[in-house]
Order: sequence, then structure tokens, then C-alpha cells
Amino acid sequence: MDYIFSNRIKGVDGEAIAEILKASADPSIISLAGGNPASELFPNEELAEIAHDLLLNEPVLTLQYSVAQGYLPLREKIKEMIKERDNINNPEDDIIITSGSQQGIDFATKCLLNEGETVVVENPTFLGALSCFSGYGAHFEGVRMENDGMDIEQFEKIVKTKKNIKLLYTIPSFQNPTGITLSQEKRERLYKICAENSILIIEDNPYGELTFDGNKFKTLKSMDTEGIVIYCGSFSKILAPGIRVGYIVANKKIIKKMAEAKQSNDTHSPMLTQVMTYEFLKRFDIGENIEKMRTLYKSKCKVLLDSVDEYFPEAVWHTVPTGGLFMWCDMGGEYDTIQVYKECIKEKVAFVPGAPFTINPNERSSAFRLNFSTMSNENIQLGVKLLGNKLHEIMK
Amino acid sequence: MDYIFSNRIKGVDGEAIAEILKASADPSIISLAGGNPASELFPNEELAEIAHDLLLNEPVLTLQYSVAQGYLPLREKIKEMIKERDNINNPEDDIIITSGSQQGIDFATKCLLNEGETVVVENPTFLGALSCFSGYGAHFEGVRMENDGMDIEQFEKIVKTKKNIKLLYTIPSFQNPTGITLSQEKRERLYKICAENSILIIEDNPYGELTFDGNKFKTLKSMDTEGIVIYCGSFSKILAPGIRVGYIVANKKIIKKMAEAKQSNDTHSPMLTQVMTYEFLKRFDIGENIEKMRTLYKSKCKVLLDSVDEYFPEAVWHTVPTGGLFMWCDMGGEYDTIQVYKECIKEKVAFVPGAPFTINPNERSSAFRLNFSTMSNENIQLGVKLLGNKLHEIMK
Repeated sequence: MDYIFSNRIKGVDGEAIAEILKASADPSIISLAGGNPASELFPNEELAEIAHDLLLNEPVLTLQYSVAQGYLPLREKIKEMIKERDNINNPEDDIIITSGSQQGIDFATKCLLNEGETVVVENPTFLGALSCFSGYGAHFEGVRMENDGMDIEQFEKIVKTKKNIKLLYTIPSFQNPTGITLSQEKRERLYKICAENSILIIEDNPYGELTFDGNKFKTLKSMDTEGIVIYCGSFSKILAPGIRVGYIVANKKIIKKMAEAKQSNDTHSPMLTQVMTYEFLKRFDIGENIEKMRTLYKSKCKVLLDSVDEYFPEAVWHTVPTGGLFMWCDMGGEYDTIQVYKECIKEKVAFVPGAPFTINPNERSSAFRLNFSTMSNENIQLGVKLLGNKLHEIMK
Repeated sequence: MDYIFSNRIKGVDGEAIAEILKASADPSIISLAGGNPASELFPNEELAEIAHDLLLNEPVLTLQYSVAQGYLPLREKIKEMIKERDNINNPEDDIIITSGSQQGIDFATKCLLNEGETVVVENPTFLGALSCFSGYGAHFEGVRMENDGMDIEQFEKIVKTKKNIKLLYTIPSFQNPTGITLSQEKRERLYKICAENSILIIEDNPYGELTFDGNKFKTLKSMDTEGIVIYCGSFSKILAPGIRVGYIVANKKIIKKMAEAKQSNDTHSPMLTQVMTYEFLKRFDIGENIEKMRTLYKSKCKVLLDSVDEYFPEAVWHTVPTGGLFMWCDMGGEYDTIQVYKECIKEKVAFVPGAPFTINPNERSSAFRLNFSTMSNENIQLGVKLLGNKLHEIMK
């Protein structure tokens, strides 16, 4: 039978990136293409104990149906955590537990965006968000990235000249894919422009805690007097991604709609993983875990930066991340990193080409993303060396 | 701020049913309104042991990111299970793991249904499916239920006279809310009509194993030579719902699209609960679990049927379920069971009124749903007695 798929799903094409990730998964390849947190820091022994206790003593709580909005004590605990940590504390807001913050982005879009309405994004940005927006028929406007975050002048111009702008999607801290952080001053300007123009902001903050120098800027949500920020939080990068526990903080009216969207999508997130997350936060100090990650990623990032300085042609521009998991490089000129990728795979080293992170993924991009959270120091060095050799050859 | 929600989410209104379920949750009320499986049969000790082993010994497998389509060994295990159990075995098919079969219905609809296209449903049907279809802008056509399943003549007429029919949604065995099972003969006619008219069938089969007399009809999927059936399976009713593990079996091309939808919705289902389900199937005989459920539900259903015969006015028509969790009753005439519900709540007994299960939830319904899987025998008897008193009073 010839299946006729819906128009909305036709816009979602994971083919190119799936091919790349498949090639990168070959164990003989040194992959700087990953995006996973370091699995050696998963607190699996603590979680084993917690899961065992809970399933033995709380079978109904962990195994029976529950409510779409998520486990109430976990929501309360998160409220405390983000109040203390980020001064996020608006009495008009509420929380919903989602299966990763990816699902929060999905439900926010489902509830708010009509087909053809515009989502403004940093360009490049997280490709999971792009494909989610595409699935709801979004029109995109992209904003250039500068060393201190998106180009606010360009954003302002887009707001003034383009119609039907409904949402701004931003990852203000240690952005994926660039590793760039939005400055405090730009955060304030950005919030003001959005508030004045009734543009809702999806603030995606999975990496915010992973600062290398202890510096953290104010979240947009903490400035949100107008109720325009939909804040996406996640335990994927500070606890473990495989449990798929994320959350959204937004105005009560939005959360109510998102709970309806969740009810009709998956009824609720698994109770076991929700209650495990709550128990972990209650029994252990997640701050200690985060501190270990900061230390590890900071040192790995330094290894990457040093290796890039040693092995890459000087003409390759790159960001200097102060947190998170990623660094962004640009060969400049007419280079096409999808072609470069194909050459590099032959040399057994992988990265992610820039094109899929942009709003025009079919256009040539001279940029690429490197990850430093998963490989050993030795493999980071070796990978960058192999990659550098190839870049010298191509750019000579 | 005045939020302008998307057109698609405006169609999803969980308000009425949420109010009803909230009232029913009062512990002083005897609730025949539930839909939960019996929690006393959850194999929580076995699952506690499995979770502990896995988290201790397989931290990367259980806690790291994974693939959208789901844990491969679980997919293989399910393939074996449904081949043996239901003769579902088409080499052109593939499997995706979803967070409950609810999510499978969502992704199938997202991938296949354009706004305004028609979904034919049994009327009444599962309200979670109705609200999911609404969220994708479905137009509905409803088919009357008879004692042996949907009225095939009416279905055939709809197919002949209505345009843009894309999907048929059916729960052929022990339907929610009626408890009715589609006869073998009707299954064959139904499949033939759909195949001839290129109508895709979503076959939702969460209760199929819960037969009281051992009789099982062929699934539509097992007859599916044309690749038109999207089969939704679930561990919610045979293992535990709180882990949210379901699956879809459909043609490879459909599964590929659904995996893309899943990637952009929640990346993948939690690995811990997927691997736990796999380990449970490997280490234990789920058939034993199912046998216990059949015995328990059969005896509870008998208590309900006997009580209804004893306490209800004779004029109340009801189905005689041969499996599953639900029975459907109809007062007939001009009665409105939302009003009856309000009266009954005062007497501390609850059920679910019929209207939300229909394609016109704002129209009066004289029907209601009773559940027999969660209450004790004593409370089933007492609840039916209280309800019967009220019905006698109203119908006299």
C-alpha cells in the first residue's frame, strides 16, 4: 500500500542527521559528534537502592496510573530547587513534569503555535527543537550568533519587520551547538523586546548548571514579570538522560493546556522514574553531582581547546565555551562541512556538520560542532589531531 | 497576558471528565468510575529485584540516551510474544516502543491524519483516543455498537457516503467503555471493507489477553496482508500501567515516520522501564500474571453482574462482558446520566456518565460505564446497591 503521510510530518526529516549519527556510532571511529553526558558520573548505585526501595514499598505509587501533570512532591521539590538556585518564583506559575525537556518544547508548541506562525530561533540552534517546530508547521526566522549570544539588533529588526511572530526559542546558557552564553545585558534587552511585543519565550536551559567558572547569568524566567517565559528544565544533564525526566515552568494557564496535551499524548510520564528523581533529590545532594560534572567537563573542555590550538589550522575560528558540552568551529569561506565530514569519516574521526543545526539545513555550512563530554582525554587529543590533519590538507 | 492558544488544542477539552474523576477520587466515595488495573497483582517484588540488578550492573544501558524506536531486545521479545500469542507475523512490519499505547495512537495520528480528515470510531469509544484525534483536527464519524461489536452495515454506509476517511479506530476486544467484543465474522468483514477502500485501521488491543472464558478472536493485525493495520499493544493491563510501556506494530514505512515523531516529541521512552519490561519477560512467565488477572477480573465481573441483576431496575440495559475491565449500562429514554451522576455523588457512589465517550460529548446520554477491576467485592455490591436505589427513585 502507498501510505499518504500527513503534511505536518513531511516537514520532519531526520534522514541526514540519522545517517551521520549512524556512521559516528561505529566503535572504531573517534566520535566528537556525541551529545551525551558522561556516563561515569551517573549515580547508578544510589538510584539502584532507591528503585529497589520504592518498588518494594510503594507498588501503587510507582506502578499504578497517575495524573498527567506529574508527581506532586517532585513538582514541589523542583519549585524549591529553582527558587533557591535561580530565583524562579512567580506565584502565577505552575510546573508540569515532562519526558525530558524535548517533550516540554513539543507540548508548548502544540498548545501555542498555529501552522504558519513564526518561531524565531538562534541560528544555529538545537536540531531537536527545529524538527519539533517543523512538525507543527512553523515558519522560521533565524538570528545570528555572536560571542555573547544572539545578535539583538537583528532580533529587533525581525520583530519590527516580520509578521505573526509567536515564539522565540533560546538556549541562553552554553548553547547547543555553539557553547555560547547570552550576556546579562542582552538577556535584559531580549526580555524587554519580547514583553513589549507579546512574544512568548521558550527558554531551554538544560546546561545552565554546567558552568566552569561558577558564573551564572540570571535566567529569563527569573525576570519574567509578564508571564511570557516558558522555562524548560531537565535532569538529563545533571542526573541521567535515560530516565527522561524534565519539567516546564510557565504561567498556570499554559501549564493547564500542556497537561491536557500530555494526557492525550502519553497519559503521564512513568511514575517510577519520577518518584526516583524525587527520592534522589530528597536523599542526596544533587549539587555534589553537579560539582563533579563541572570539574570533569571543564578539564575535558580544556583538553579540547588545547588540542584545537595545537592541531587545527589557525584559520579555523572556534568558540571558547565556559560551560556545557559543546564547542562550535567554523572553517569560513566556501567549505562545506558535510563534504569534510565524509572525508573525515574515512580517517576514523567524526563531528557533526553545521547545516542540520540551521534553519536552512540544505544550504552549505562551513561550521561544525565538537563535543567534549564523552570521550577520554586521550581520544579527544587523538580525534582533534586526525581532524586537524584533514583540515590542514583541505584548507592548504 | 492573554494567551492565544493554538486552534488544535482548543478542540481538546478535558474539563468535564476531569471534574468527574476529581469527584470520584474522594476516598469516602465508592467509585465504579475507575479504569485502573488491580494493583494487588503488580509483580512489584520481581520488578524491584530487576530494577536493582539493572541499575547496578547496566548503568549505561539504563541511564544513558538511546534510540527513538526503543530497546531492540524488547522489540524482538515482543515480536516473539505476539507471533506466538496472536499469530502476528508480517515480515513487512516493524515495532516501535511507545510510552503507553496512548502515545502510539498519538504518533500514528500525527503521521497520518491531516486536519479535517475523517476518523471513524465506535460510538461510544475510549475518550483518550477521541481527545488525541481532536488535537489533530479530526472530523469524526461514529458507528453504533451492537452486542457483537460495531454495526457493520452502518460502517459500510459511512464508507460509501462520506469523504476523506483516513482512519478507523477500533478496540475489537472487551472494548472501553462497553466491554463489547467484535465477533470473528464482523472482524473479517471489517478488514475487507477497509482494505478495499484504503482505510487504515488503528487496532487498539490493551485488554485482549483479559478473556474470562479463554476465547480469543483473531486480531485484525493477524489478517493484515495489505499492511493497513496499525496495532497498538500495551503492558499497562498485563504488567503495570505506571511504567508506561506500550508498542505499535505496523508497516515499516509507518514505523519509520513514527520514530521521527517520537524523536521530536520525547527523544525516546525511558530506558530503565523498557529494559525492566524486557527482563521481566525474559526471567518470568507473564502468562502466569495474566492468568491471575483473568481469574480475579472474571470473579469481580460476576459480582458486578449479580449485583446489577439484584439491585438495578429491570429497565436498565447492560452489556455482559466476557473480558476486560468495563461494563456499559443504559437507562434508555430521556435520562441524562450527567444529572444522574450529580445525584449519585451525593449518595457517595460514582460511575462515568456516557456523554464524554461519544463523538458529541455535549449531547445528552442515558448510558454510563461501570468498572469492576479495582474495588473489593463488598464495595462493588454496596456501590451497585446505592446506585440501584437511586436509579429506582429516578426511573419510577
